[in-house]
Amino acid sequence: MGALDEGHYHAEIDNEVSFELGFETQPETLAIQDAVRVLLQGLGEDINREGIKKTPFRVAKALRQGTRAGLEGGSGQAGGVGGLVIVRDLDLFSYCESCLLPFQVKCHVGYVPSGKRVVGLSKLSRVADIFAKRLQSPQRLADEVCTALQHGIKPTGVAVVLQCMHIHFPNIESAFLDSTSQGWVKITATSGSGVFEDGNADVWTDFWSLLKFRGISIDNAHRRSSGQSWCPSQSCGMPGQANSAMTNAVNSILKSLGEDPLREELVETPSRFVKWFMNFRNSNLEMKLNGFVRSRIDTRSPSGQVGNFNDGICSELNLSFWSQCEHHLLPFQGVVHIGYHSSDGVNPVGRPLVQSVVHFYGFKLQVQERVTRQIAETVSSFLGEDIIVVVEANHTCMISRGIEKFGSNTATFAVLGRFSTDPVARAKFLQSLPDSCSAGR
Amino acid sequence: MGALDEGHYHAEIDNEVSFELGFETQPETLAIQDAVRVLLQGLGEDINREGIKKTPFRVAKALRQGTRAGLEGGSGQAGGVGGLVIVRDLDLFSYCESCLLPFQVKCHVGYVPSGKRVVGLSKLSRVADIFAKRLQSPQRLADEVCTALQHGIKPTGVAVVLQCMHIHFPNIESAFLDSTSQGWVKITATSGSGVFEDGNADVWTDFWSLLKFRGISIDNAHRRSSGQSWCPSQSCGMPGQANSAMTNAVNSILKSLGEDPLREELVETPSRFVKWFMNFRNSNLEMKLNGFVRSRIDTRSPSGQVGNFNDGICSELNLSFWSQCEHHLLPFQGVVHIGYHSSDGVNPVGRPLVQSVVHFYGFKLQVQERVTRQIAETVSSFLGEDIIVVVEANHTCMISRGIEKFGSNTATFAVLGRFSTDPVARAKFLQSLPDSCSAGR
Repeated sequence: MGALDEGHYHAEIDNEVSFELGFETQPETLAIQDAVRVLLQGLGEDINREGIKKTPFRVAKALRQGTRAGLEGGSGQAGGVGGLVIVRDLDLFSYCESCLLPFQVKCHVGYVPSGKRVVGLSKLSRVADIFAKRLQSPQRLADEVCTALQHGIKPTGVAVVLQCMHIHFPNIESAFLDSTSQGWVKITATSGSGVFEDGNADVWTDFWSLLKFRGISIDNAHRRSSGQSWCPSQSCGMPGQANSAMTNAVNSILKSLGEDPLREELVETPSRFVKWFMNFRNSNLEMKLNGFVRSRIDTRSPSGQVGNFNDGICSELNLSFWSQCEHHLLPFQGVVHIGYHSSDGVNPVGRPLVQSVVHFYGFKLQVQERVTRQIAETVSSFLGEDIIVVVEANHTCMISRGIEKFGSNTATFAVLGRFSTDPVARAKFLQSLPDSCSAGR
Repeated sequence: MGALDEGHYHAEIDNEVSFELGFETQPETLAIQDAVRVLLQGLGEDINREGIKKTPFRVAKALRQGTRAGLEGGSGQAGGVGGLVIVRDLDLFSYCESCLLPFQVKCHVGYVPSGKRVVGLSKLSRVADIFAKRLQSPQRLADEVCTALQHGIKPTGVAVVLQCMHIHFPNIESAFLDSTSQGWVKITATSGSGVFEDGNADVWTDFWSLLKFRGISIDNAHRRSSGQSWCPSQSCGMPGQANSAMTNAVNSILKSLGEDPLREELVETPSRFVKWFMNFRNSNLEMKLNGFVRSRIDTRSPSGQVGNFNDGICSELNLSFWSQCEHHLLPFQGVVHIGYHSSDGVNPVGRPLVQSVVHFYGFKLQVQERVTRQIAETVSSFLGEDIIVVVEANHTCMISRGIEKFGSNTATFAVLGRFSTDPVARAKFLQSLPDSCSAGR
């Protein structure tokens, strides 16, 4: 234990946000603290030892928080003093200053304690969260987290690596041209201070190695993050004439969030946002589509249903899907799978038309279950009366709001005709679905 | 849109927890709502349409919450009315009623809307969270979530599938016998109501298929969850004579959490907890170990360091590791990798002794950085003065407290001798580490 000075842990608890007025003196809190002291003494520990003297309070807080919703805060887990300490894979989200959409962040922090101060693992996470909850760019977020940790804990050095994922930004025209646009725009941003200030320092090599990012170095990470903005809204060209009432409205939102709409990075944001947002206007696309479908409907082969129904189950899988949640005005996107019956095994209208139907109903203000049913009803006019549709989507609102369920996703399905009544036919189709949700990471 | 009745969405927002007194009338909130109405009108939407009339408020709440820490709550994302709706992969944690340790849960919910009420996606998550934050068993948790959703939203049916992971429960003796005990105990619990009440109903087949649990059915899920408790503390045999002051202390904790210590499932919990907890007592294991090491130390081959240092780098990877965080009295566990130099490529004392050192320093109240350094210093007495130690661990306190960073993990490292000064040697060792953190899922 030579190198360890446990007298420095006290700084951690003192900096904590107190999470409930009077919590510390509530009888339940005091009873748990007393109980924990008994347990520690039972282990033969000195309950006044610096490293554990606040442990009874921490345990009381964690237990009461963990078994009751609504308590806030959380104390730290100290890393210690000595070599490099790394916390990997903290999930965060932030808001893109170029387009106002949320982006996801995998945050990795490394630091070399100075011997004077140590920091709780959860403090790293809290600091990163605080700076993420602003309109940000990846590089500024990395720099701000790094600077805050350097000033707050004064270590020998801090390094921050952010792997950021921005939702793709198709408009309704480009979605038709590029069906791969359902993916994510990814970037890695890094920031270092103290011994990490020099990106070529050996300590960065250790950090990359411990992160197990084989083949990634600060050089190629930086190369990727420099230059123009990563936000796909930036590459859509200059915003055209946007409705000025709408851009004024977005300006008003920026001000209400405490931002300066004249800040350089924000000047074009309202018109970019409006341009993209107008993709979801309530135009009468069904009418156009119905015309299109009607002109094709006679080309389909008669579904004679000779032989076993299940032998004729066909599918169009992984159709890209993009929509806007009408409750939060945030994107949800993923894939659509459609099953139908065809005695000759041929899609009578071709995959592009089916993809078009998906885009037509996606590019609106929607809820997932409605779009699922709309797709089913429309494709039944040219793929036959036996239809099964599954929509698998990630909802931006599920990661960027209080619940922050990063890995969750949603599936809906709709059935028509024989698929409503024949569980074997449903099972046959469902078991053919690809395992991975391509909307995920 | 025939089947959809958008008039039913209003129930969702009314049930929300209000998250800040006066939030609704704050000027920033009102300004954002005004702005959103302008944007919706710009899309050609009727802002009084049932489905979107609360959208301005939801957007204001989400944006202000997303760009500022500390706001609570979160409104729902409606699924709609019609077929089966599934939300997959909600990360939760709960506390095991048998041993008081947290366990992780992947929660999947399916429901068939009745046409009368729909439920927000985030509401499913909130309900599951509320019932998880109690002392629980997987089956009771599944049943309680299912019942609450059935009563709360009155759908045609609700199904809940929980994949639960309990940390393994070795004691210091069993850890030596079974080095694979670092993993997790896993169980699947299910509960269904309404159309899901019959576990053989076709709707369960659809649900399993949409979850993409190939080969899992309610039958084998149930078979696994029935019978004795899943908690590994139960299979350690009857608790022996435990220190009664300590068991009384645990009883006091149960009462302070609002639990009845006489509830059948909790009666043995205090003595089980104390029995396990005593594995971490502060005995003088170093002394025993030092004797052991001294008797072996002469067997090591002289490290002549002839030739290239890097050619003689040897390693013991993936040594299982188990410890108890002294700040929260919660386990952290994972793997230890040790690199050393040996000119003949042979570990002079064998892997079991190295594993013993890891267990000896792990089975205490610890912080990760200290145990890393203690291991390095001790193994240097028999593996030579050039030592590098990496500890990769998952901290239970990082998932079971306010921050709930489920995927995060922590790496620490310590270097002695030539590894301190030779970045190439460090890099060579670090790049040999296995990619996956075996402590993860």
